[in-house]
Amino acid sequence: MLGAGAWGTAFALVLADAGNEVALWARRAELAEAMAVKRCNVDHLPGVELPEAVAPTADAAAALAGADLVFLAVPSQRLREHLARWSELLRADAVLISLAKGVELTTTYRMSQVIAEVTGAGPERIAVVTGPNLAAEVAARQPAATVVACAHLGVAGRIQEACHTEWFRAYTHTDVIGAELGGAIKNVIALAVGMAHGMGLGDNAKAALMTRGIAETARLGVALGADPYTFAGLAGLGDLVATCQSPLSRNRSFGERVGAGVPVEVLTADTRQVVEGVKTCEAICDLAERHRVDMPIVTQVAAAIRDGVPPGEVLRTLMSRSAKHEREGI
Amino acid sequence: MLGAGAWGTAFALVLADAGNEVALWARRAELAEAMAVKRCNVDHLPGVELPEAVAPTADAAAALAGADLVFLAVPSQRLREHLARWSELLRADAVLISLAKGVELTTTYRMSQVIAEVTGAGPERIAVVTGPNLAAEVAARQPAATVVACAHLGVAGRIQEACHTEWFRAYTHTDVIGAELGGAIKNVIALAVGMAHGMGLGDNAKAALMTRGIAETARLGVALGADPYTFAGLAGLGDLVATCQSPLSRNRSFGERVGAGVPVEVLTADTRQVVEGVKTCEAICDLAERHRVDMPIVTQVAAAIRDGVPPGEVLRTLMSRSAKHEREGI
Repeated sequence: MLGAGAWGTAFALVLADAGNEVALWARRAELAEAMAVKRCNVDHLPGVELPEAVAPTADAAAALAGADLVFLAVPSQRLREHLARWSELLRADAVLISLAKGVELTTTYRMSQVIAEVTGAGPERIAVVTGPNLAAEVAARQPAATVVACAHLGVAGRIQEACHTEWFRAYTHTDVIGAELGGAIKNVIALAVGMAHGMGLGDNAKAALMTRGIAETARLGVALGADPYTFAGLAGLGDLVATCQSPLSRNRSFGERVGAGVPVEVLTADTRQVVEGVKTCEAICDLAERHRVDMPIVTQVAAAIRDGVPPGEVLRTLMSRSAKHEREGI
Repeated sequence: MLGAGAWGTAFALVLADAGNEVALWARRAELAEAMAVKRCNVDHLPGVELPEAVAPTADAAAALAGADLVFLAVPSQRLREHLARWSELLRADAVLISLAKGVELTTTYRMSQVIAEVTGAGPERIAVVTGPNLAAEVAARQPAATVVACAHLGVAGRIQEACHTEWFRAYTHTDVIGAELGGAIKNVIALAVGMAHGMGLGDNAKAALMTRGIAETARLGVALGADPYTFAGLAGLGDLVATCQSPLSRNRSFGERVGAGVPVEVLTADTRQVVEGVKTCEAICDLAERHRVDMPIVTQVAAAIRDGVPPGEVLRTLMSRSAKHEREGI
């Protein structure tokens, strides 16, 4: 496991519970050491004990020595630089599994594309794990389900077996593109749902935004070669529902304050870091434009957040579009 | 509009706002009279003014005289007996549009099948309107979206036009079976989500239940001739999300109390009437068995509610199923 943030650590727990020996690499030597001594990731998952089978380390070479399944849980915008350093340490047949949700900003590449480009691995060595998996709940061994996607179903099956536990159910899939796109875009739709909530709109409007958000994602997915049904699954809808429900979602609460009329400059100054959905929104707008796909919700989120269009106007634009067939473009 | 409950009345408002003259039939003469005098449905939508274009009446013959679009908003278990009485009053070319969500218990017929059997109308005269439409929000003119399904797309388009307003967006579809099944089953999945909440499970588990609930509904839908993608749309997922979010959902809160350990007999005695999802659950189990479709969530809801199996055991059964492909059977 490369990356010891909340999700990397929680997933290392899942792997350990499923019977694997797991090397858990942390970028900072202090964190690796603290985890080794205290048997807990105090920075990101306080109160959760690390199983014996998890071995923290700050030495990537040691972590990768002999590893056949390599899980990548570093931030999406950092994956490229990390991988470049790790490439030579990888076993020639190691499967590289992305746990990051996002799109690389400069290239609009999905994580699997970054992996392929940097390491030269073929599709049978690249996979994605994604779904409604709030790290704190998974670490608390609350029941959850996820998707393991790899172009080669047999490889997906191997990973599924490696992470299937009593309380964590993994489903295989071959649609890597759809799984990644679903994970990336849900933060943008969560911004939209947050905005609706901040404007005082009700459950009908929020449910419609989620559903139509999934529909426009499916349109983009089809253009990129994904299976449209993937977006109705755990990697799309499932992840979106969990994100929109969770009081912990920074995307949703950022959207809420935009909807309530707080200017974006104020929010950005306030939160210091830009929330993931805002960055992803730009990348998705680029992709949609390049593939000439109509994505009204993503476009309007961008209008509100990048161009400062008032939420009321954004809503009017969405509601006044011409009448449509529900499956238009899917 | 035949039926002046909350949803019938709210939808009459939508039709009036869209520019139609609407006769609003109430079963009870007192209610029709009160609405005519007070210009408000005090029983079901207190505080909401009826537009001038809505004409309340208790005389079905008067309501149906010349009506080309007939919306049916009576309870699903009562539709057959009402329709038998109305059949002769219908214009020969009147389109019959079901607004009820449910399956007839004795026959496991969907509402469109009941309409076809009782009136002899062909598929070009039978339609369904369904989606995430909490009546109170629609009546308050909060933004919402819905699906208008008819085997004949042109007819769906006519109905879409008749109910499309500034704040209510209707999407056409030709999948009547999927639209009806989605509307019926969401109450059963809402029971499951409520149970999970009552057991103290988190957002991951609830999101997984919703998503996998939609997946098993899609399996049944495919067996019955529906388009699996319909369940990812407003009539499936959208409606489910709104129902599970709403604090007003009786299905969800019934499930919550079951999950918290209250015996079902106590709850049924308490609420006097059986919640819709409990009835629908039986009918869906019948359908699934007849078509040999594996529906683990619906089956386990039935086990908990009909057979009194403890929620903890139900959860263990669901989590211990063999590992699967996400699209198995869809």
